Amino acid sequence: MTFTIAKCMVAQNQNTGVIMAISLAEGQMFKGLFGDNELSVLFSDSAEVRAMLLVEGALAAAQGKLGTIPQESGEIINRMAREVLIDPGHLAAGVARDGVVVPALVAAFATEMQAPEHSAYLHKGATSQDIIDTALVLRLRRVLDILDARLAVLLDTLAKQAETHKTTPMGARTRHQIATPTALGARIASWGAPFLRHRQRLAELRPRVLVVSLAGASGNLSAFEGRGLETADALAKELGLGRAELPWHSARDGICELANLCGLICGSLGKIAQDLLLSAQIGDGLRAGVGGGSSTMPHKANPTGAEAMLALARQGQGLAAQVAGAAFHAQERDGAAWSQEWLSLPSLIVATGAALCHGLDLAGSLDVEQDKLASVFEETNGLMMAEAASFALAEHMPLADARALTKSACAKSVQSGEPLRTVMARETVLAIDWDRVFDARSALGESEAIVSRFCDLVARQRPEKT
Amino acid sequence: MTFTIAKCMVAQNQNTGVIMAISLAEGQMFKGLFGDNELSVLFSDSAEVRAMLLVEGALAAAQGKLGTIPQESGEIINRMAREVLIDPGHLAAGVARDGVVVPALVAAFATEMQAPEHSAYLHKGATSQDIIDTALVLRLRRVLDILDARLAVLLDTLAKQAETHKTTPMGARTRHQIATPTALGARIASWGAPFLRHRQRLAELRPRVLVVSLAGASGNLSAFEGRGLETADALAKELGLGRAELPWHSARDGICELANLCGLICGSLGKIAQDLLLSAQIGDGLRAGVGGGSSTMPHKANPTGAEAMLALARQGQGLAAQVAGAAFHAQERDGAAWSQEWLSLPSLIVATGAALCHGLDLAGSLDVEQDKLASVFEETNGLMMAEAASFALAEHMPLADARALTKSACAKSVQSGEPLRTVMARETVLAIDWDRVFDARSALGESEAIVSRFCDLVARQRPEKT
Amino acid sequence: MTFTIAKCMVAQNQNTGVIMAISLAEGQMFKGLFGDNELSVLFSDSAEVRAMLLVEGALAAAQGKLGTIPQESGEIINRMAREVLIDPGHLAAGVARDGVVVPALVAAFATEMQAPEHSAYLHKGATSQDIIDTALVLRLRRVLDILDARLAVLLDTLAKQAETHKTTPMGARTRHQIATPTALGARIASWGAPFLRHRQRLAELRPRVLVVSLAGASGNLSAFEGRGLETADALAKELGLGRAELPWHSARDGICELANLCGLICGSLGKIAQDLLLSAQIGDGLRAGVGGGSSTMPHKANPTGAEAMLALARQGQGLAAQVAGAAFHAQERDGAAWSQEWLSLPSLIVATGAALCHGLDLAGSLDVEQDKLASVFEETNGLMMAEAASFALAEHMPLADARALTKSACAKSVQSGEPLRTVMARETVLAIDWDRVFDARSALGESEAIVSRFCDLVARQRPEKT
Amino acid sequence: MTFTIAKCMVAQNQNTGVIMAISLAEGQMFKGLFGDNELSVLFSDSAEVRAMLLVEGALAAAQGKLGTIPQESGEIINRMAREVLIDPGHLAAGVARDGVVVPALVAAFATEMQAPEHSAYLHKGATSQDIIDTALVLRLRRVLDILDARLAVLLDTLAKQAETHKTTPMGARTRHQIATPTALGARIASWGAPFLRHRQRLAELRPRVLVVSLAGASGNLSAFEGRGLETADALAKELGLGRAELPWHSARDGICELANLCGLICGSLGKIAQDLLLSAQIGDGLRAGVGGGSSTMPHKANPTGAEAMLALARQGQGLAAQVAGAAFHAQERDGAAWSQEWLSLPSLIVATGAALCHGLDLAGSLDVEQDKLASVFEETNGLMMAEAASFALAEHMPLADARALTKSACAKSVQSGEPLRTVMARETVLAIDWDRVFDARSALGESEAIVSRFCDLVARQRPEKT
Repeated sequence: MTFTIAKCMVAQNQNTGVIMAISLAEGQMFKGLFGDNELSVLFSDSAEVRAMLLVEGALAAAQGKLGTIPQESGEIINRMAREVLIDPGHLAAGVARDGVVVPALVAAFATEMQAPEHSAYLHKGATSQDIIDTALVLRLRRVLDILDARLAVLLDTLAKQAETHKTTPMGARTRHQIATPTALGARIASWGAPFLRHRQRLAELRPRVLVVSLAGASGNLSAFEGRGLETADALAKELGLGRAELPWHSARDGICELANLCGLICGSLGKIAQDLLLSAQIGDGLRAGVGGGSSTMPHKANPTGAEAMLALARQGQGLAAQVAGAAFHAQERDGAAWSQEWLSLPSLIVATGAALCHGLDLAGSLDVEQDKLASVFEETNGLMMAEAASFALAEHMPLADARALTKSACAKSVQSGEPLRTVMARETVLAIDWDRVFDARSALGESEAIVSRFCDLVARQRPEKT
Repeated sequence: MTFTIAKCMVAQNQNTGVIMAISLAEGQMFKGLFGDNELSVLFSDSAEVRAMLLVEGALAAAQGKLGTIPQESGEIINRMAREVLIDPGHLAAGVARDGVVVPALVAAFATEMQAPEHSAYLHKGATSQDIIDTALVLRLRRVLDILDARLAVLLDTLAKQAETHKTTPMGARTRHQIATPTALGARIASWGAPFLRHRQRLAELRPRVLVVSLAGASGNLSAFEGRGLETADALAKELGLGRAELPWHSARDGICELANLCGLICGSLGKIAQDLLLSAQIGDGLRAGVGGGSSTMPHKANPTGAEAMLALARQGQGLAAQVAGAAFHAQERDGAAWSQEWLSLPSLIVATGAALCHGLDLAGSLDVEQDKLASVFEETNGLMMAEAASFALAEHMPLADARALTKSACAKSVQSGEPLRTVMARETVLAIDWDRVFDARSALGESEAIVSRFCDLVARQRPEKT
Repeated sequence: MTFTIAKCMVAQNQNTGVIMAISLAEGQMFKGLFGDNELSVLFSDSAEVRAMLLVEGALAAAQGKLGTIPQESGEIINRMAREVLIDPGHLAAGVARDGVVVPALVAAFATEMQAPEHSAYLHKGATSQDIIDTALVLRLRRVLDILDARLAVLLDTLAKQAETHKTTPMGARTRHQIATPTALGARIASWGAPFLRHRQRLAELRPRVLVVSLAGASGNLSAFEGRGLETADALAKELGLGRAELPWHSARDGICELANLCGLICGSLGKIAQDLLLSAQIGDGLRAGVGGGSSTMPHKANPTGAEAMLALARQGQGLAAQVAGAAFHAQERDGAAWSQEWLSLPSLIVATGAALCHGLDLAGSLDVEQDKLASVFEETNGLMMAEAASFALAEHMPLADARALTKSACAKSVQSGEPLRTVMARETVLAIDWDRVFDARSALGESEAIVSRFCDLVARQRPEKT
Repeated sequence: MTFTIAKCMVAQNQNTGVIMAISLAEGQMFKGLFGDNELSVLFSDSAEVRAMLLVEGALAAAQGKLGTIPQESGEIINRMAREVLIDPGHLAAGVARDGVVVPALVAAFATEMQAPEHSAYLHKGATSQDIIDTALVLRLRRVLDILDARLAVLLDTLAKQAETHKTTPMGARTRHQIATPTALGARIASWGAPFLRHRQRLAELRPRVLVVSLAGASGNLSAFEGRGLETADALAKELGLGRAELPWHSARDGICELANLCGLICGSLGKIAQDLLLSAQIGDGLRAGVGGGSSTMPHKANPTGAEAMLALARQGQGLAAQVAGAAFHAQERDGAAWSQEWLSLPSLIVATGAALCHGLDLAGSLDVEQDKLASVFEETNGLMMAEAASFALAEHMPLADARALTKSACAKSVQSGEPLRTVMARETVLAIDWDRVFDARSALGESEAIVSRFCDLVARQRPEKT
């Protein structure tokens, strides 16, 4: 019995030569907005092949030093692994058949070596996952360095901006409404604070994530003749990675934790982006980035950077949730759960990185019209000072009464359009210095102290990883 | 005040020439496993540019016919739109600035036309979103055709397999345990049934999704001089799309519904994949696809196709959930929510399509070892017939007693290793034809009738869309 | 070897008598904000027990009529099923042991009947899932009726509001910026349009979802002596449900489709909520609901209803994604995937219903300050009319030139604070009636026609289900 | 203009007295399976009210000590806060109006105090969020203690089981196929390893999460007369919480990190559950928990505990993703994003806790039939030893040749049904001790060393938090 082979399967076997762009991070048109070359390049086919070869080479070198394979073979394999050129495209058929790239890669490498007496010791005792996971970790090390460096620059940038605006008055907004006065610097510090913690988290996960994986076919290193754990430690040393106290082939919590960190970073970036979009909405005098043009409305300057940052941040959170599902990794190896990591993790990292780039750009290009930012005080007729007014009254009466009186004055102000201060002054006979009470600049609370604490914490963080 | 420009932003402005592969659907190595060229090509940069030009051309043609622009200009723009070649890469700077591609595209097209007297009428009254959304719909029409055709082939394939195996006995498995006998055909019918409904759903959503979008800058077609809704209808006719009863620029339920359908298809494919993986696990004689090799275990034939299908299905569901979030589309246009669609929808469609290709391949290559499939009856000492035995006893005693007696016999069989039938025969003195009761083939219930119903329903569905 | 029994397991076996409130829909404090009694009550323990008993009764009645059990037993079981009182709490031990409630329920029912000659025919041929799924469908029928009725009222309400405001000018907002003028009615129509489609979708899924489930232990109705499909049809008739063309015990696409519909409704409600929050943010004169008080800021009136609606909508979308995962339902029955439905579906339905209640409340209480809504035209110095101005100029010059000229005038207006109209009039010598061009009311495009179309579509929809 | 008030809104205002059970963690029937009383009780209405009162009391006490309110008032408020009884149901109307509970709570507390001269100082300078967030943190402290204690017991239990089974042979399974031999202890160690890291993560997040929140109306403590940060530190001391270096009212990364940890724990528990379900599926001799009964199949013992654990784990991951979305917290306070936390976090914590309880139960009740577990070696005709055989051959020929020869022998064994060992012995003339090669017990690799490392690491962890 034969069945129609669907057209799609034929299509899959053709290389049409068209550069696909289903991921906007990769297409020509959109990668300036949604891509991140510095990180993407780590997940290119050729970078993956390169990293796997490095691991095969280092494994042989380690085994040569331990004497479990001839030392010369170990050295030759290791050297060749750095020199050999293997076209990723030639491995495609093997991947489609095996679901993993290593069998085809090992075969291609052995062929290229043209030295069967040495290539016989290639990949000895290892399984595909050992190579793939360790090669991933090699690149994740670079990912963490890049992200951490960007986080450090972002914090530095935000600290400078917070310092600059530590007494710039603006209207705080709570629950989508004007609340009381605050300083722009305090908001910027609130943007920045989570990134201090993200750097801590990143440092804490390094020793859990940047570890070698070498566990053999079934996780007990059975093909290493009793010297498997020792070989794993030697491989770690060879590659400058941490040693794994226990095999982690089927325990993906490290990968998931890294994905979660990306999700947390995306969350904090998305909050900034959303705040900037809301400022663009209100037109409160706070802008960032170069405004984008409209195809039909000449007056617009769209907040393109903040939009892209928010979209990337949401996308990143969704992809982090996808990676989380890969934790349900069956038995000693789960081809489906593992593939799911491959489908999500690189996109997540690139989305996080691209969002961070926008964050750096926007944080660095904050454009503040101080007068406009402060104009909310006039425009709202001083309603923002209602809390301060109620506290001023409370020096003369119970707080509850003071609040009730202020609330009534607010209602009158809204109805009549008169400034709240005028109403308050008229309705009370108390000796209150309403000038002082209604001076926004005197109502910024402890904004300056908050900014100072933030800048101190940033200064205390080392700009570079240990 | 100047801030450090992060390295990443520099990197973004360089075109490294490396083909990125962060999406496995696109890299050379993995696209045979996770890609779908037939669908991917619809979302390439060049396909998007082509589709947008078609919409600009059709809009001008429609306006020419309505007389709102000179008819000659409409014709020339429409013809040129099909001929002009615009390099997507040249639009990248505009996209990075504006967040959308249309301003740069319209400018490039006008330049290429070298006929300012006509190009003046290009894009008249429209806004970027009109062009982008309608160009998306043009490609979604093709997507729905492709998916529907594959669903039809899949149903046909499953119907043939179900018919072939309508009396092939196997052990049904409920809650991860052997339950009672069933026919393989009944399971295949249960795999196929949802796809009958998916085709219905696909047909039902066509008129909601395959509609033109033309709403102008703010959704009320204000730049069409009172003839906007009429123009929208004419544009729909020009492109062979449905007319939109109401503008949908900020109402993304159609896009989300399509994403949901992809998610539903992924769910039904994932169920098949998971069942095949469980069969591979049990080694019950049911296989599909070509087994993949292990880099170290010579005896293995890994269920690569089912693994990839399950991973893609899960990925598809996650991406569908991402698209859902785009429904929170602010006010008259939301750059962030809209970008989120762009980041998720193409990947979702390609994941769905790739999973469907695996589904077609696996459904067509089911490899059934009937003896092995039936061997579960012996191996489980007839325990699968326990329900049948209890019903046989119940002809002679209350059902509750019959169940208790059978349960006790099961326990004895498990303990002693004797076939349940032997235990039952020994423990009862009733005139029961235990041969008949313990014949698996007589215990397939209404499997055949179920298969017949399924095949009839498949036969009644037209293979092609209307 | 004995292991410490964790304290939590002990705790689980105690009934502390405290009313838990981990779901805010159920606690005393929050259910007015996040709950929906009308829907919640359908998912109470007692409603579930009641529905399962109805199904057991109807099954016996159907079997009695078919003659596969004594007709008298069928009638008695059916009558008793409506009368018997079974305390859900007494079934808890059985659920904890079996993972499903039916074995304990059937035992309790049989005991209560005190008529072993009849109760012997209880649950004959059925499996737990038949009862549980059909009992769910009985309640989903009510859910769909309730949701559809609310959708109809919501549409009616929105149509009235759109009609009222079909020429109320406001500033449209695109990409978080002021765009061009529109009518409030056009925005309200854009809010309402998706709900027209949601009612279509709801009607379309009824025949796929509201069907009986009767498939027996392994899906082939093997314990019904060859009359299983017939019994299933008879049961459907007895309960007024649709017949299932094919068993769906392991094909959860219907449940997932219903979850998706809830997700779509949540998406459309969330969009309205977000727009209202943005209006609260801008203070543009558009409010809905009663404002909530602040514990410390006397002047605030927080948009509580919109906040709760948006939170519920997002929660609903997340839960819909959870239900989607239940599609990966292994083999003939999957206890884990099935439990996941139970954990998500009721919460999803209640979140959707509660969000709809807020939607009804907010749509009905829209509070429009027309002057404030229109004041954006003055405040933005006429920049919103820039597109209209460019089109007016384009009658005298190429559109590209007109756009460039307008863009330059916009920049001058922004810089100098002069109205755009003043700048345009000064900078051009053309005979343009700038009064007309800058009259917002003449710039509402086809808002009225859009509102009319929307109201017509609402009027054409029947308020009740068929 | 009046609009129909939907029936649902009426329903919401009635207290029907029915105990809702839309969350299975709370209903009578299912809470033994899906609930966790020890954790649920922390999120009951009354526990929330109690915690908020504690915070109001501690705030007053701290302010009294600092002298910013009369010391006597501080003491009295603090004492009354511990004694007063406030019915959560009486606060419902306030919550429905304000969206937060604090205004109604403060009013009720003040009324109950019947001492206006003191109650005037209640809640002074604070905003609702200060109270709600700090009250949440108080309960999260208890949550972390409970989870950590359970993790410690789980690790202890798994270590004992791993030790017991450090040389119990079983077939490892990779990619859903039999791979090579391993020891059950090695698998148990792979289950346990992530929980070592989860305890580290939990310890690391404590100082980031268990911190006081006191930021005032807009985040700058403006109503504390310049002593806000000092008051916050004093409040932290009063409650035994960490001090917040910076306000975190709008920076939800701590909450999200805690949610992520729950998600990670769920992932690791789900992996165990899935492995147990696969063992139930294969019938490999590895069971855990008491098997559940079927309503119709007497022979079944359903893996109820593992099913519930997997369902809860998946649910937990989904809810963690929901909490992540709350990171997009707008401006100085976001009612919608904040409500989303309330809707997800308690359910997530309870799902995690309930899954952990199942984990403890299953880990403690592992039931291993060693003969059955080992029988896979015979049943698979020694194919599992193929890797070992190829390495034995490789001592006499190049590894590639050895693999090819072994692969061919495997194929012959599969075809003929002969043991692989027989085929290998026949096909080779080499002096290989096939007895040793095919002895599973000699092929467990470094399982014992892995178990030892795991047990050492568990022993080194302190059972209790610092």
